[in-house]
Amino acid sequence: MPKREFDSDDQTLDKLVRLGRRIQEQLEDETADDLEIETPVRSRTNVLYDEDEGRLKLGDSTSTRKFLNMSQARKFMQTTLVASKAKELIQQGSTASIRELYYQLKHTIEGLDENTFEDQDESNPVVVDLEAATGTIREELHMFAETKGNLFGPLVINDAGDRIDCMNMGTSGLAIPSIVDHYEFEECNADYVLVVETQALVNRLVEEDYHEKEDAIIIGAGGQPSRGTRRLVNILHGRLDLPVYVFTDADPYGYYIYSVLKSGSMSLANQSDRLATPSARLVGMTMEDIEEYGLHHVTENMKGKPEDSGGPTKDYKRARDVKDYEWMQQDQWQRQFQKMLDMGVRVEQQALASQGLEFVADTYLPEKIENEEFLD
Amino acid sequence: MPKREFDSDDQTLDKLVRLGRRIQEQLEDETADDLEIETPVRSRTNVLYDEDEGRLKLGDSTSTRKFLNMSQARKFMQTTLVASKAKELIQQGSTASIRELYYQLKHTIEGLDENTFEDQDESNPVVVDLEAATGTIREELHMFAETKGNLFGPLVINDAGDRIDCMNMGTSGLAIPSIVDHYEFEECNADYVLVVETQALVNRLVEEDYHEKEDAIIIGAGGQPSRGTRRLVNILHGRLDLPVYVFTDADPYGYYIYSVLKSGSMSLANQSDRLATPSARLVGMTMEDIEEYGLHHVTENMKGKPEDSGGPTKDYKRARDVKDYEWMQQDQWQRQFQKMLDMGVRVEQQALASQGLEFVADTYLPEKIENEEFLD
Repeated sequence: MPKREFDSDDQTLDKLVRLGRRIQEQLEDETADDLEIETPVRSRTNVLYDEDEGRLKLGDSTSTRKFLNMSQARKFMQTTLVASKAKELIQQGSTASIRELYYQLKHTIEGLDENTFEDQDESNPVVVDLEAATGTIREELHMFAETKGNLFGPLVINDAGDRIDCMNMGTSGLAIPSIVDHYEFEECNADYVLVVETQALVNRLVEEDYHEKEDAIIIGAGGQPSRGTRRLVNILHGRLDLPVYVFTDADPYGYYIYSVLKSGSMSLANQSDRLATPSARLVGMTMEDIEEYGLHHVTENMKGKPEDSGGPTKDYKRARDVKDYEWMQQDQWQRQFQKMLDMGVRVEQQALASQGLEFVADTYLPEKIENEEFLD
Repeated sequence: MPKREFDSDDQTLDKLVRLGRRIQEQLEDETADDLEIETPVRSRTNVLYDEDEGRLKLGDSTSTRKFLNMSQARKFMQTTLVASKAKELIQQGSTASIRELYYQLKHTIEGLDENTFEDQDESNPVVVDLEAATGTIREELHMFAETKGNLFGPLVINDAGDRIDCMNMGTSGLAIPSIVDHYEFEECNADYVLVVETQALVNRLVEEDYHEKEDAIIIGAGGQPSRGTRRLVNILHGRLDLPVYVFTDADPYGYYIYSVLKSGSMSLANQSDRLATPSARLVGMTMEDIEEYGLHHVTENMKGKPEDSGGPTKDYKRARDVKDYEWMQQDQWQRQFQKMLDMGVRVEQQALASQGLEFVADTYLPEKIENEEFLD
């Protein structure tokens, strides 16, 4: 097996060993009543918005997992199993998907008719707990999730010795892996990073040679961006000092995607410093675009009207939820959501095709970026 | 806009023009009662399995769409709109996603309060109708769907002038686009093509350098393979004479994926000659693997038991459906499905990780391929 080593390995190993040592010390301490693992509380009550940093973070609440507590003993055992496997992965220089991890750890405890894990829904939260407990991220623990997203543009990446010229990737681009921390950017001639919600619009921009004409790095998120994609945007901004523009549908889901890229997500609030890019700006679509570009006939009705049974649901519910986020309280955002709720419509990036296929690449994006028409 | 030209363009244009001419002739023919477009029937009743060819095909039934029939006039209008747009795309040398196509064609008919298309569910079937009516495929009409799947291995592809060395694509591989017909294979040092159902298992094989050690082209399907992936497998086999091995979960969905790759799908039976690869063989997983490799503790229970309310559904229903396909009647396949139904379990590719992360790459696949342990 070829070795996979990260700069963080020594530090991560150290954190895992410290976790184990604390348990060992409790075992050897005859005055201790129980074995405990302390983890930060990750529920919404403990998620704060840090206005100075412009991103979500976890508060100080912690919860304690006790070995001699009937309801916590199983989770305690699972946490130590996952921690031990993470240590093994790092020492072997290999990585495992979180599904493989589940299969590697699943076994019947000898002498008992009991599985260590019943299904992956049991092991996934333990991985996130371990991340929070040790202050690491999954990738540092040598674990990864699905690959999603792709990249095009004037950027040369060194990926574990392979030199990848992202300008020369045909019509398909570089598929963004789960782990990108080891990327080295050898050359960059881009002026900015454009993160695009839908794959179809990425195809359009690439067909129009947008990345070449506009010296842009195009990143296709394929819906909600994966951790790998969020991390890549974060390091492209951090290491290369490139501005980041986000291009989504004008709808609650699109603006939610923007907010996750910019400020982080609640479920991964402990990792916002690595995954969020607070200076990211939204280049479009906006609700004003409907008027501005004559898109009335290509809007879609929002789903889940408040007056429908059980309403508001779907689009309406998400619009209200995102509108209420503490980090979306600027006037410009409130205006977008109010307009959306009032008009009852959403509009997709691809609706710009009604103005001609090349319109989005030749006119819409270059004009907005030139004139700095952004939402922040 | 950079030009996108395919070898098929002249032929496709010719087919579209002929479709238009037939309508024009009917218009000019004073004895004709109506305008008609004839398309092959695409429902299951008209799908046949061609045993000699080893793939599905459409029968001879056709249906006629009449302009002066109240229930067909709208579809008639839509078909001519899509055909006209396809001609324009080919002549302009551009391509459009089927969503963009919808937005490009959607408009309110002047003087009427009526849209040409209400939503994409109206335009998508018209695209498939047009494919069937003209004997073309979507890609030849310069239309495409979402990108899915990736490729690794000792293969150099020339994609519209870009030379892509698929061995040198880091951890992410070449993302497979919707349109691959224009690929030129400049160099190939592979012994076979391995199509893998899940992305996670592709990551595992790549981490183990399987493609390099075994001289294999690895294609990740990411579930049900996209048209682009199916077409790429077809031309890799056809042009380079490479054997194709398929590696899926041992479950009804995995075997369905195999059957689609090998024999084609019912909804695209008219395109099996381009999308299916009848010589493809299944390398695993098989139900026998559970015994052979001691995987009992990492199987999953099948869902949708016959005795549950409304059952059989889900896994059980699909297992029965695929078991009944005319093209899955060989003893070896019937045995797989019977075993699956009897045991009531399925087993995933990633369950092999319970034998060690490198087991699938170092032992399982090389041994099966060396010993030619395949299902056909």
